[in-house]
Amino acid sequence: MQQERRILVAVDESQESMHALSWCLSNLFPQNTKNTLILLYVKPPPVCSSYDATGYLFGGDVIETMEKYSRELANSVMARAETVYTDFNTNIEVEKKVGSGDAKEVICAAVKKLGADVLVMGSHDYGFFKRTLLGSVSDHCSKHVRCPVVVVKRPKDV
Amino acid sequence: MQQERRILVAVDESQESMHALSWCLSNLFPQNTKNTLILLYVKPPPVCSSYDATGYLFGGDVIETMEKYSRELANSVMARAETVYTDFNTNIEVEKKVGSGDAKEVICAAVKKLGADVLVMGSHDYGFFKRTLLGSVSDHCSKHVRCPVVVVKRPKDV
Repeated sequence: MQQERRILVAVDESQESMHALSWCLSNLFPQNTKNTLILLYVKPPPVCSSYDATGYLFGGDVIETMEKYSRELANSVMARAETVYTDFNTNIEVEKKVGSGDAKEVICAAVKKLGADVLVMGSHDYGFFKRTLLGSVSDHCSKHVRCPVVVVKRPKDV
Repeated sequence: MQQERRILVAVDESQESMHALSWCLSNLFPQNTKNTLILLYVKPPPVCSSYDATGYLFGGDVIETMEKYSRELANSVMARAETVYTDFNTNIEVEKKVGSGDAKEVICAAVKKLGADVLVMGSHDYGFFKRTLLGSVSDHCSKHVRCPVVVVKRPKDV
């Protein structure tokens, strides 16, 4: 009866996103599921200018170091996610994608491009001021994608 | 393996909320589930003042008619929801609740009071101005409840 669904989970280095992945596996991957898990990690946009905010020129080695760090962070997040889904069930079909740019724009575009049926995201439980300053990726995505969006907060006791 | 969950679906007279209920049944009620479906309908607050906005006194019969209409609407929404979940599976455990007041406040309070593990809501696909003027019940609830929130939009082709 259950249709096969493509479920996109936006992961980052936060505990919240790993909790969202875990919730997703427990709730949207029933036994004998043929659903596909798409893991999406969004790296910050590459450094376009060689100047930092104070006008100093970045050396090529600084830019290279930053990009290396960004790649390593992506690998580390994906490895952590792999531990979560392998613990849950080793037979899940998984696609891993790494994007680059403004997280909220990249996530919305990926939902469309990859044909996701559900988007699952963790939510940082920021207070009013931080939320107003930073905006909220989950708010933006809820408004702009067509498919159902699940926002998962980390339980207080974890 | 699957835990038993209490899944609260906020229903109203919109097509969007019935679509959200339908999505919820297809995705969060796997076969042989022991999950409980909680249907919550929120009536507008009762008329407290006997004066309308222009200062005219409402007669008791007008107030009685408005309250009767509100009760009938609640019954009609619940009956429609019943058709949706009975079509899906007749063995689901269902609790029906009718609240009264500001929908977003009542939904958040109900999630806590009824011990819901997931909140599912439809989303009206308002444009920017209408959203800004009316605010969004789903936005408010996503921020204020602790459990995962699923926001389901009605597909464009329905």
